[in-house]
Amino acid sequence: MCEEHDGFTLWFTGLPCSGKSAVGDRVAAILKERGHRVERLDGDVVRQELTRDLGFSKKDRDENIRRVTFVAKLLSRNGVAVLTSFISPYREMRDRARKETTNFVEIYAKCPLDICIQRDVKGMYQKAIRGEIKEFTGISDPYEEPQSAEIVLETDKETVEESVQKVLRRLTELGLL
Amino acid sequence: MCEEHDGFTLWFTGLPCSGKSAVGDRVAAILKERGHRVERLDGDVVRQELTRDLGFSKKDRDENIRRVTFVAKLLSRNGVAVLTSFISPYREMRDRARKETTNFVEIYAKCPLDICIQRDVKGMYQKAIRGEIKEFTGISDPYEEPQSAEIVLETDKETVEESVQKVLRRLTELGLL
Repeated sequence: MCEEHDGFTLWFTGLPCSGKSAVGDRVAAILKERGHRVERLDGDVVRQELTRDLGFSKKDRDENIRRVTFVAKLLSRNGVAVLTSFISPYREMRDRARKETTNFVEIYAKCPLDICIQRDVKGMYQKAIRGEIKEFTGISDPYEEPQSAEIVLETDKETVEESVQKVLRRLTELGLL
Repeated sequence: MCEEHDGFTLWFTGLPCSGKSAVGDRVAAILKERGHRVERLDGDVVRQELTRDLGFSKKDRDENIRRVTFVAKLLSRNGVAVLTSFISPYREMRDRARKETTNFVEIYAKCPLDICIQRDVKGMYQKAIRGEIKEFTGISDPYEEPQSAEIVLETDKETVEESVQKVLRRLTELGLL
């Protein structure tokens, strides 16, 4: 077997519990099945290996995204399909990632805040609302919506599978699959 | 053209001015010519993009190498030839990199301290000797020699080109080229 794919960077952004990781995980699995080299970068991995010194101030969030961007840059220019899932609330840092990485595709997991609060998978929103967590995006910290994302997922209206198919269709249109 | 190579990690270690980067740069250029995907990771790049919060205490050096190891791991398991040049003075962290990355090859740029001091490319040794730089490896900070490096370069006795050929020969023997 000898397959060579172009690398690209699927940058999932959105509020906590907006569905970024659910869709990203599924897309990653499908790309692997299709023979792509795939790497997932998300908070769980990266905050352990790369950025465990960092908190959630704007400065620390920016530095977190800076390091992720560096890794995504090296991987995507070497033929890897990189899927990142980070709230990445600041437009400036997402635009920086767009410039630095290969074939950057911004994927906005769009979901109304009240639905995200209802989901509250890890109980973090409730803690933030009670003031037990500070600088929590959507409650006590800003989220700057993407203005020209390549893909917008409406995760309150679509199933995960529908969102996944939307991503795959768009990647085909963009010539990346 | 469709070429697929196994990834590997060439981990250059040695005192400041021991010749790690000169040999690494040349090997990287040759591997690129031969069609490999190649990434160089060295202090200049990494301390800008990944670890600019870090100093030179043991804790910070270890964290620096931890982050580099993470990046080398992701690249090498995706078919990239990764060449790292870091003093990486602590055996424990080099051994950790060996476990984490794909096809790890430790390359010790061996050179007597007095020769390194004579070279002193950036005048850092003199500053360290005068006490203007603290925690400088070889002067005021330890260097733990490799005990079972796959390749030992004697950079005081070999030309850069001889060292380069030694690396390429050994990589061929190891089945990596």
